Amino acid sequence: MARLLLTFILGIFATGELTAEDGYRLWLRYDRIEGTSNRNDYRRPMQSIIIATPSGAESAIIQSARAEIARGLDTMLGRKLTTVHVVAREADPALGAEGYALENVTVDEEKAVRIRANSDAGALYGVFDLLRRVQMREPVHELAVVAVPKIDRRLLNHWDDLNGFVERGYAGFSLWRWHELPHILSPRYTDYARALASLGLNGTVVTSVNANALILTPVYLEKVAALAEIFRAWGIRTYLTARYSAPIEIGGLDTADPLDPTVQAWWEAKIDEIHEHIPDFGGFVVKANSEGQPGPHDYGRDHAVGANLLAAPLAADGRDGIVMWRAFVYDYEDDTDRVKQAYNQFVPLDGKFADNVLVQIKNGPLDFMPREAFSPLFGATPQTKQMVELQITQEYLGASLQLAYLGTMWDEVLQQDTFARGEGSTIGRITDGSLHGHELSAICGVANTGSDRNWTGHPLAQANWYAFGRMAWDHTLGARAIAEEWARLTFDADAEATTSIVELLMGSRETVVNYSMPLGLHHIMERGHHYGPGPWVEGGRADWTSPYYHQADAQGIGADRVASGSNAIEQYAPELQAQWGSLASVPDELLLWFHHVPWDYEMKSGRILWDELALRYQQGVDEVRAMITRWDGLRDQIDRERWQATRERLVVQEQDAREWRDACLLYFQQFSQRPLPEGVEPPEHDLQHYIDVDRRYFPGHPGDY
Amino acid sequence: MARLLLTFILGIFATGELTAEDGYRLWLRYDRIEGTSNRNDYRRPMQSIIIATPSGAESAIIQSARAEIARGLDTMLGRKLTTVHVVAREADPALGAEGYALENVTVDEEKAVRIRANSDAGALYGVFDLLRRVQMREPVHELAVVAVPKIDRRLLNHWDDLNGFVERGYAGFSLWRWHELPHILSPRYTDYARALASLGLNGTVVTSVNANALILTPVYLEKVAALAEIFRAWGIRTYLTARYSAPIEIGGLDTADPLDPTVQAWWEAKIDEIHEHIPDFGGFVVKANSEGQPGPHDYGRDHAVGANLLAAPLAADGRDGIVMWRAFVYDYEDDTDRVKQAYNQFVPLDGKFADNVLVQIKNGPLDFMPREAFSPLFGATPQTKQMVELQITQEYLGASLQLAYLGTMWDEVLQQDTFARGEGSTIGRITDGSLHGHELSAICGVANTGSDRNWTGHPLAQANWYAFGRMAWDHTLGARAIAEEWARLTFDADAEATTSIVELLMGSRETVVNYSMPLGLHHIMERGHHYGPGPWVEGGRADWTSPYYHQADAQGIGADRVASGSNAIEQYAPELQAQWGSLASVPDELLLWFHHVPWDYEMKSGRILWDELALRYQQGVDEVRAMITRWDGLRDQIDRERWQATRERLVVQEQDAREWRDACLLYFQQFSQRPLPEGVEPPEHDLQHYIDVDRRYFPGHPGDY
Repeated sequence: MARLLLTFILGIFATGELTAEDGYRLWLRYDRIEGTSNRNDYRRPMQSIIIATPSGAESAIIQSARAEIARGLDTMLGRKLTTVHVVAREADPALGAEGYALENVTVDEEKAVRIRANSDAGALYGVFDLLRRVQMREPVHELAVVAVPKIDRRLLNHWDDLNGFVERGYAGFSLWRWHELPHILSPRYTDYARALASLGLNGTVVTSVNANALILTPVYLEKVAALAEIFRAWGIRTYLTARYSAPIEIGGLDTADPLDPTVQAWWEAKIDEIHEHIPDFGGFVVKANSEGQPGPHDYGRDHAVGANLLAAPLAADGRDGIVMWRAFVYDYEDDTDRVKQAYNQFVPLDGKFADNVLVQIKNGPLDFMPREAFSPLFGATPQTKQMVELQITQEYLGASLQLAYLGTMWDEVLQQDTFARGEGSTIGRITDGSLHGHELSAICGVANTGSDRNWTGHPLAQANWYAFGRMAWDHTLGARAIAEEWARLTFDADAEATTSIVELLMGSRETVVNYSMPLGLHHIMERGHHYGPGPWVEGGRADWTSPYYHQADAQGIGADRVASGSNAIEQYAPELQAQWGSLASVPDELLLWFHHVPWDYEMKSGRILWDELALRYQQGVDEVRAMITRWDGLRDQIDRERWQATRERLVVQEQDAREWRDACLLYFQQFSQRPLPEGVEPPEHDLQHYIDVDRRYFPGHPGDY
Repeated sequence: MARLLLTFILGIFATGELTAEDGYRLWLRYDRIEGTSNRNDYRRPMQSIIIATPSGAESAIIQSARAEIARGLDTMLGRKLTTVHVVAREADPALGAEGYALENVTVDEEKAVRIRANSDAGALYGVFDLLRRVQMREPVHELAVVAVPKIDRRLLNHWDDLNGFVERGYAGFSLWRWHELPHILSPRYTDYARALASLGLNGTVVTSVNANALILTPVYLEKVAALAEIFRAWGIRTYLTARYSAPIEIGGLDTADPLDPTVQAWWEAKIDEIHEHIPDFGGFVVKANSEGQPGPHDYGRDHAVGANLLAAPLAADGRDGIVMWRAFVYDYEDDTDRVKQAYNQFVPLDGKFADNVLVQIKNGPLDFMPREAFSPLFGATPQTKQMVELQITQEYLGASLQLAYLGTMWDEVLQQDTFARGEGSTIGRITDGSLHGHELSAICGVANTGSDRNWTGHPLAQANWYAFGRMAWDHTLGARAIAEEWARLTFDADAEATTSIVELLMGSRETVVNYSMPLGLHHIMERGHHYGPGPWVEGGRADWTSPYYHQADAQGIGADRVASGSNAIEQYAPELQAQWGSLASVPDELLLWFHHVPWDYEMKSGRILWDELALRYQQGVDEVRAMITRWDGLRDQIDRERWQATRERLVVQEQDAREWRDACLLYFQQFSQRPLPEGVEPPEHDLQHYIDVDRRYFPGHPGDY
């Protein structure tokens, strides 16, 4: 009856508020500013908008900028039309290729905001910045803004298959409707491009790293071209994934050997053909010789030879295409600790990659765990351009059912010091190219978008899309500042409530760590869909099992990656080896990543490891409960639909947190043979119950599709 | 550049109008009535609404009715709250179980509209009728409405798999988000239920006929129960599909033999368990011994024994559950003409089915072709309840890319005379039970809904959902009247434009017939996805090839189903045998369904068959072009987003129509060896080109997923 009443209440709001606040508008809501005087605060200094670029010319991107100004300011200020002048003005080196300046000027006694940029894309970013300020009710009469992106190529990677399935996608299915393209153009494509441009993202890889060669056939290239034309008007270049065996599969060749001239000729012709369809084609992402994907190793060639094959024609004829060659590689036959393998494969190749190749490295050396030590490959190949691959979609952090703001995780990654060139050699500075003086730089995030109305499934997961985009623009902005910006743009909450939302976001990733893989534990999730606990997962290749990573036994738990074990720690700088290699100085968060630790080891807290572990799991559950309490306190500050959708997911999260806690503690207790410490709730079921949980048809996992 | 400009224009409308008119609201738009005096025309006679039922009690359904009145009238009339009184009033036999009356009354000097019904569901239907009148700007001050559904169970069948895939679904993916249920309840579930209730549909089968036994496990039943609770508040009962081998697959038995007592006990217990979750469970649809599905034949039992196994527990303990046993059966081993097999299997079983079993028969004996002769099984088993299964989703009529209003096809079916009890023995009267005096009746339509924002992919395909619902309520309403109703509710076009939309709809199905399978041709589509021409499809089982059906050879074309051939015609009444069995009297539309006809046979038109065939294909193409012209004329009458989305699809349809024409004529020309007659455009490519068209990843087809 309670649910029935709730359904009834929701029913009332379903059409009333649903259209208004279903999350579709993301952070570009442009709601009318209440109060004439408030509106006048913006009208007065913005009697017109001046876009100043070196050419001063109209273009598709400038038209987009005009459209966005009209869309945003008309609604917010209640004006019918905002005058926009496009003028020519000499380039300003300080603004780089895609930066912008916002300034107040007076022209013919008319107050105007001038957006200066060296390119149309830069001007467009300036427009979005200005609109953001108005949305956040920040003053615009004393503007002195200069903003320049630190990284050149700022990309989303979509793991979308051609049949509409999104690998590790939890927000519905693919945004790309291939069977409708090129003739039927969903308005959503434009709104997608607007969202990217609003963050300064300038590229999108529309197909999965587990690539399908069909995308390179004429029928599909025509479809990609239709998308690319829409995206181009928003400053976004289109990229594809290249299946290494494409010359065989769609080219009719009998080899894909990168040193075979017919293979080289095939790729040259194919890349020419792609450019006929997509003149500003951005390049390829390649997953090769990884998890069963074909690659140059199949022909005894290394990654550099493999990548350079594609890089040459992408740089020919004045093109500026790039190859993003993934470092996510590990071999079934190689029994080296999996987290060491990428380093081992790539370090010897330093200096051998073509200029337009970037090695694309996941933040951690394993696979997007809730927390990992960073990949030791960062900074280890100074002559090779490196870029970081972040995962916006929550493969290991609760899909779109759990709240995990990843800004904090990415801050941790991007501010992480590698000591590659001494102190301050952060991953951010490696990615932006400044550390090793590389001209070309890139960053990418695996998208969490899908066909769901609100794009990301979980209403608050929009914050992750937002945070990735903002950090790709400037990796020093900071997770908290970005969270606050997002919350202000996304909700109409008052200052206190906004702070509450920000706090909720800021703690959420650590909460997921606590209830799923605390103290440096990793890869103990259920197999296949990766949702929920699976410390018992065994069978098949060792590095796809859980005990390979947690190594629990009667003595203790944790992966031994110091000298007594795999010695993976040797791949890090001496400073880090010293800190992380010793039980005394390793931080709790990485303890079991690097060390096999006795159950009765005394932690910094004074508790023994087993008790600390159990209490961390309990803490995770408690924190989710506190999140629910906090959210309940926001009930009057957030529109009904998004509040309710989030509330329902938090309830699922609390249940899931308990499942993680109970399943993992019962499992590890078999080894520790110790009682749960005081303060930890007794498990609801026995271990077998948790082992038997069967999540058939959980989305994002190719298995059942 | 043209596309670029278009993109730009669309971009402007994307956020402006998109939220307003993206099709999500279907025919329940409730836009404000312009003009105070116009609003007063409705306010005056509706100072309050009185709902009069025998109990006069509040209930979940009455709450839904209240909510819908508030939602509809508040918006349309600009009132904040409409007073709704619920009063007790004795039952009126004339209204049946779910009918209603709308009347004007005056109570305490207050003018009111009274909705009388014998059940809460009836009252809810009355509310939707009233709101429909207001939406269509029809007067409500002289109401004398009595409406009673002719058929008891009015169902949608969803061919939705548990992984989100919709078999033959072209509007996105499944509406049911199983991994989120039962905790996360999309507001869309309520809007879906409102849409059904607005048409008088009172049941939904949420899973595919190609059933998965997992749906009957406790974890999934809990999820179904959450949906059922939402639906129940809108008068909608939930049904499931039963996989016949479930006792083996999830029950641990080693047989599913319907005469095995352990199997019987298993189903009894399972159906008890379902009722614990869903007290008003509606029953099962079963596809058994058809296209590889398990069934009673596996144990040497017939369909009646098979169906009665499930029927008994569904009728036990005062339950009123039903079994809808599909007659879509044909055997690989049986070399009888496939269109004869269902009749042969079911006629001998007449009288053997339990009272709560209905045999569910597709309109034609083959499989939802653009046009078929009706299934001869209709009327042939007078002691057996029969129901018709219509296909709303356009498996063979252009998916959601082509416009085909199916109201006309269903009119043709439901008004078709079987002569089973002499003239007037229509399929409508068989389905509503009146012809053979059955108390229980049902009708179902295979849904065309999906996760697409506008529910049906093609904006105008909403008309098919609407038409099915209205015809399920009353099969005599007529396709044109329904189309007009739908167009008035769905668009804000003026009278002339509305007529134009109706004309567009009314001709559209025949247009698809003309360019794809004219003159009685059938089953000549591409294999697998069934989209586009495939008269050349061969290989595998004979009755899945095209030549099995078109029988083209040097002499002529068409399936010989008279005495010289399979004699399928013998399964029809003598009156129809006489008309259809003779070349002189068979209508052109069924010519090649029943006859193998020489290429030079002189048609009623005076042309030889080959020329007539070619000109029909051309006519189909010409008609699509005329549809585009007509649609272009509606540009100012229809909101931008829906106009554009439809326009883009019409362009695809014109291209597809040409492909059908060229491919089929080139293919058949190999046999006819005759030139294309004057007036037929020459084909664009050679035959091989059309054979080589490869629509990988066309949606709705399980093959590639």
